Amino acid sequence: MPTTTRQWLLNGHPRGRGIEIDNDFRLVEAELPDPGQGEMLLKTHYLGFDPAQKGWMENIADYVAPMNIGDVMRGSGIAEVVASNGGRFAVGDMVFGTTGWTEYLVTDGKELTRVETELSPTAVLSVLGTTGLTAYCGLFKVGKPVAGDTVLVSGAAGATGSIVGQLAKIAGCRVVGIAGGKDKCDWLVREAGYDAAIDYKAGGVKEQIRELCPRGVDVIYDNVGGKILNDMLACIATGARVVICGGISRYETGSLPAGPENYFNLVFRRGTMAGFIVLDWASEFPGIRKRLEGFVKGGSLKYQEDIQHGFENAPQTLQRLFTGQNRGKQMLKL
Amino acid sequence: MPTTTRQWLLNGHPRGRGIEIDNDFRLVEAELPDPGQGEMLLKTHYLGFDPAQKGWMENIADYVAPMNIGDVMRGSGIAEVVASNGGRFAVGDMVFGTTGWTEYLVTDGKELTRVETELSPTAVLSVLGTTGLTAYCGLFKVGKPVAGDTVLVSGAAGATGSIVGQLAKIAGCRVVGIAGGKDKCDWLVREAGYDAAIDYKAGGVKEQIRELCPRGVDVIYDNVGGKILNDMLACIATGARVVICGGISRYETGSLPAGPENYFNLVFRRGTMAGFIVLDWASEFPGIRKRLEGFVKGGSLKYQEDIQHGFENAPQTLQRLFTGQNRGKQMLKL
Repeated sequence: MPTTTRQWLLNGHPRGRGIEIDNDFRLVEAELPDPGQGEMLLKTHYLGFDPAQKGWMENIADYVAPMNIGDVMRGSGIAEVVASNGGRFAVGDMVFGTTGWTEYLVTDGKELTRVETELSPTAVLSVLGTTGLTAYCGLFKVGKPVAGDTVLVSGAAGATGSIVGQLAKIAGCRVVGIAGGKDKCDWLVREAGYDAAIDYKAGGVKEQIRELCPRGVDVIYDNVGGKILNDMLACIATGARVVICGGISRYETGSLPAGPENYFNLVFRRGTMAGFIVLDWASEFPGIRKRLEGFVKGGSLKYQEDIQHGFENAPQTLQRLFTGQNRGKQMLKL
Repeated sequence: MPTTTRQWLLNGHPRGRGIEIDNDFRLVEAELPDPGQGEMLLKTHYLGFDPAQKGWMENIADYVAPMNIGDVMRGSGIAEVVASNGGRFAVGDMVFGTTGWTEYLVTDGKELTRVETELSPTAVLSVLGTTGLTAYCGLFKVGKPVAGDTVLVSGAAGATGSIVGQLAKIAGCRVVGIAGGKDKCDWLVREAGYDAAIDYKAGGVKEQIRELCPRGVDVIYDNVGGKILNDMLACIATGARVVICGGISRYETGSLPAGPENYFNLVFRRGTMAGFIVLDWASEFPGIRKRLEGFVKGGSLKYQEDIQHGFENAPQTLQRLFTGQNRGKQMLKL
């Protein structure tokens, strides 16, 4: 049994700037207590990464508990129960949840869930994890598409965006995605089943949306913010629903993305723009996971995982999200 | 019977600029045809003015039919039937609707409604007109306040804003208004029943909102846009509804108001921002007018009318809306 564990601690709040790997994190060796009554010792096998982690590091959002300097970096993971003192899971069980960036942890496991899927175990961090749940809830509970709607997704080749598009296809919609670069756009159409893709790096985003969505956009699922959101708002159909999922453009500078001046189209088009926090539907997650798993097994939902290696590379792996290097859900195998 | 009538025609599209009275309108004397079968001759007694008229003049919004150079300026009015060739109203009836800026008109009256109110006849253009209907529908159908909510209104001393606040009070809400200048703010609290008022000309709008709405704002009713909307968005409570009614700030320059970068708070707060076109609820207007009239007669809803005089002053009277001169609903008595 190990008595210490390596951990990545938060060492800086990246406000108003990008993440600085050397300054914002600190790798330490920490003591591991013996599991108390009802506790277990867990060994982390995978970490999952999400752009929201930068927001947590900034400690300015208040929808989650604040992260302070010296805290173990918060994040999702898959871990194995290696010892139990009357804990709720058995030795050998694989569990997932907010494990944090630590090789081992002692926990009562109340916030963790047993991995039970016919897919690969890593699916609980990707298509069955927050990524898939965010895609599902944002699209169906906020965007509320109906068959025949045109759905436009920004950050479409990202982990969430690629699932959003496929769910919209399953729901009978026409789906257009916006992504950066020809490779990603080709992948959207050939592999992810998008009806069309727009390469924002090639310019003319608004003109391309107009051409590809001649009757206007009924549902926008925005992962990006900034100018792309503004261009999308210029093209909404009457009664459009605009789902604000993320603003990855804000992470480049750390400041909020520019405000979309075309918000006023919400008046002309009787549109609605809404944000959401996926945790609000936590009670429904087990049922939604079953649906997502069913879509994958049925062949209508594909997902990509980008698996890096080595616990020491956790900060660099997070950074990949903000440089657009990842293709699909970013994970790290310890 | 008159055979000609004076009319104000549209003579310019004020896009990207304010209205230029001398260039954008042209006063002409036009022939009046004899009323055909089913038609009537009407004499206009009052015109009503609304910021949306500048949008119509610009001819860029497409939720209403375009206005072209040479068209009679579109606008609401109250008119008296002075002759009828089998028309649907009787000679002597007062009717209201979109009469346009003309002293006389010949019409079948299909789009007009008989004035039937126990209030003064001008009420059909103010508290019972588009102004009151917009306040009612925007607040109750989009903002959906419940008793105990904090409602924040911008442009609060305007014709619409002052009614919004009073309706929110009737609905059991705490109501805070934002207006320009101490006089307007005093009026909001003393006469319109607002719980508190913020003078945006005195600065520190966001700080004052925070102080006056310590638990956050549940419903925003925005008539202004721009920096004030952004400051309001900084202070929303969880689940807030943001009603976009107007963007009078855009009329100063003719361009869209600046985009509110704090739209991202919609994510952190699970908020919704929505626009609306009051005409979508036209089928409900008769019933809503009865409710509004009931509130006025019951003493819980006051309204102000700012009545200018002289048909030749129609353009100047419209201009008053954009210089903040009007107190209450802007009208013109012919």
